[in-house]
Amino acid sequence: MRADIITIGDELLIGQTVNTNSSWIGQELSLFGVEIARSTTISDDQNEIISSLDDALNRSDLIIITGGLGPTKDDITKETLCAYFKTELVLREDVLERIKAYFEARGKEMLPSNIQQAELPKDCIVLDNHLGTASGMWFEKNGKVVVSIPGVPYEMKALMTDQILPRVKSYFSVSGMYHQTIMTQGIGESFLAEIIRDWENRIYRAGLSLAYLPSPGIVKLRITSKIGIEDATKIDGFIQELHELIPQYIYGKNGESIFDVVGKILRSKNKTLGTVESCTGGAMSAGFVSIPNSSDYFQGSLITYSNDLKINLADVKPLTIENHGAVSEQVVKEMALGGKNKLGVDYCLSVSGIAGPTGGTDEKPVGYVWIGLATPGGVKARSFQFGTDRGRNIEMTILSAAQFLRKELLGI
Amino acid sequence: MRADIITIGDELLIGQTVNTNSSWIGQELSLFGVEIARSTTISDDQNEIISSLDDALNRSDLIIITGGLGPTKDDITKETLCAYFKTELVLREDVLERIKAYFEARGKEMLPSNIQQAELPKDCIVLDNHLGTASGMWFEKNGKVVVSIPGVPYEMKALMTDQILPRVKSYFSVSGMYHQTIMTQGIGESFLAEIIRDWENRIYRAGLSLAYLPSPGIVKLRITSKIGIEDATKIDGFIQELHELIPQYIYGKNGESIFDVVGKILRSKNKTLGTVESCTGGAMSAGFVSIPNSSDYFQGSLITYSNDLKINLADVKPLTIENHGAVSEQVVKEMALGGKNKLGVDYCLSVSGIAGPTGGTDEKPVGYVWIGLATPGGVKARSFQFGTDRGRNIEMTILSAAQFLRKELLGI
Repeated sequence: MRADIITIGDELLIGQTVNTNSSWIGQELSLFGVEIARSTTISDDQNEIISSLDDALNRSDLIIITGGLGPTKDDITKETLCAYFKTELVLREDVLERIKAYFEARGKEMLPSNIQQAELPKDCIVLDNHLGTASGMWFEKNGKVVVSIPGVPYEMKALMTDQILPRVKSYFSVSGMYHQTIMTQGIGESFLAEIIRDWENRIYRAGLSLAYLPSPGIVKLRITSKIGIEDATKIDGFIQELHELIPQYIYGKNGESIFDVVGKILRSKNKTLGTVESCTGGAMSAGFVSIPNSSDYFQGSLITYSNDLKINLADVKPLTIENHGAVSEQVVKEMALGGKNKLGVDYCLSVSGIAGPTGGTDEKPVGYVWIGLATPGGVKARSFQFGTDRGRNIEMTILSAAQFLRKELLGI
Repeated sequence: MRADIITIGDELLIGQTVNTNSSWIGQELSLFGVEIARSTTISDDQNEIISSLDDALNRSDLIIITGGLGPTKDDITKETLCAYFKTELVLREDVLERIKAYFEARGKEMLPSNIQQAELPKDCIVLDNHLGTASGMWFEKNGKVVVSIPGVPYEMKALMTDQILPRVKSYFSVSGMYHQTIMTQGIGESFLAEIIRDWENRIYRAGLSLAYLPSPGIVKLRITSKIGIEDATKIDGFIQELHELIPQYIYGKNGESIFDVVGKILRSKNKTLGTVESCTGGAMSAGFVSIPNSSDYFQGSLITYSNDLKINLADVKPLTIENHGAVSEQVVKEMALGGKNKLGVDYCLSVSGIAGPTGGTDEKPVGYVWIGLATPGGVKARSFQFGTDRGRNIEMTILSAAQFLRKELLGI
């Protein structure tokens, strides 16, 4: 079974927006065992929509179209699809009610253009969008399926996950591949490959395959069976072996967030957490708070970006900064201890580093970071040398700090 | 003049790699005045290369192909292009010398597959790749141009910038399109469209076009001229008019970050900033710190996720929380004033809200947020009702807070 992905939008063609929708949909469909035949990005133009759709239907069984469905007039997808499938727009009262409720819940006024969004092709299954006002549309023709959904990423993802993938599964009876993904943090792809080489070779000998999926600070290992879920036990066995081989790097599975994993450990131990941050500026704290119900363990943070605040808020001694510099083992230890005390928490992570792009020296170059951790039993610290990109350094730092705490909590 | 972009690679189709090459090339070509007709991602397959190339040549004058040129055997692009342009591979001694030098400079051994990389089509202009071993190829046919370059982003970018764009300019004598983008925050796409309808109609009557590019909390408005930079003054006039029409929503242009814009105002006024955050958990602070050199104005933050810390760190009165709840005008005002004092800053933003997905009530549903702002002259607060998604609510809150501060700083 093959699929084509069509993404509509000039902003994608001219590179104003990076096309993350295509890659996300490609990933989800291939995890489902669907082969991606081609991915095409076109402008918001009737002829382009028709020609790319014709082309895709010659090649594939399923076409996913994103974009071109907003309330403003540069969006013409809906009318083009109506013409293509020889149907007409009708006002869907149920959809209108949902759009009305959407605006009421937000205390906002509905506009005529929003009412038009309730006009949908007669001959399609309407996919309710609970996060926005543009509905998804599911067309069937000669055993093939064309789906059109809005391009706003979180609306698109919810529609894909909740409605489209389950429908694809039943409509096409996809059995397909079976995957499990192991999340690792703190080791690069090449080093990881060296350490797990024997294990990887046995994966292949067992008729399975392995993919390395690196992103800043994290490498996911995806084990795939082409047979399907019958291989689940075999795959679980390999995962268990890997846990014994590299327990310090594995923090979770299947896309779990390391902040969620650490939060669950804290909750189970009934312990609280806070942070004291300099170069990450609150990103570590925000990482923990991004998890629902993090108030069970997360109390708060001191963001001490200036040296004055390191001293006044986190009780760092002025002399420690003077003697060792703000980016030092001594300072992050005092920050962690000061934060533990001021925030009244069991564990306190601290960080000070040179995020870049400027501010580096020969001795402490851009990307040089100290992470401290105060625990009920004392305080420890570790240094890291990341790269030259500010955003990436902040991301690497907060993931490494969460991993530092995870290992401390588990005693590994 | 129109261009097609073809990117080759299964890793792009299955979403293992996000296709940043397409967006980068699209951006560069459109800045050059070239219209991007279509962008296609295909697998490393001879038939796919031929069919997408045929298709693209029917539509466009210039085809840029990336990927499919590595030393490993799954790369068949070069031979396919040879067949397509009815030419043959010949060993290019000059290229072989360059590849040899490449390996010598790195102290690495050359492999047979690298020698094969010096075999290139007879009838093409070879584009020297100084950063890798795969050369670029420039084919001309019936006034049209097909370029094939490696997919490694930094090799691709160097080849594009140093060799391809200058050649495109002289070969096609391009003049081309011209864009300017206006960044707005705090108003949805539909409402914006209502307010600026007359202005928008005049844009079209002036022979220009307008696109709405929404993302959470932000709507970008892109004005395009098909003629080119000669329309710059006309477009600037429209932008000026829009500034007079909706000054409260426009915060910048061409992809600027609102945190950068606010930071520049603070720097110019020599004022300092801090934040006190509950539901955003440090994300607002991290937003300001994401900007290089933000230490010029940003001092630090108190992340008071628990009520105890609101009281102990930010001097919120226990009775205020008891009487009004943690998510209230009174509490965010006390948070902002407490933070201004404790952090020793000129301006302090504060936030308390229900990020979700749980914790909402009838009176204060998920997405209900209060933002406070202490200034040298006093304190003010505003409430917002966002949606149901935790991550999006946090994102909307921090953008709205930055906009709140921008308007205060500019007195609008």
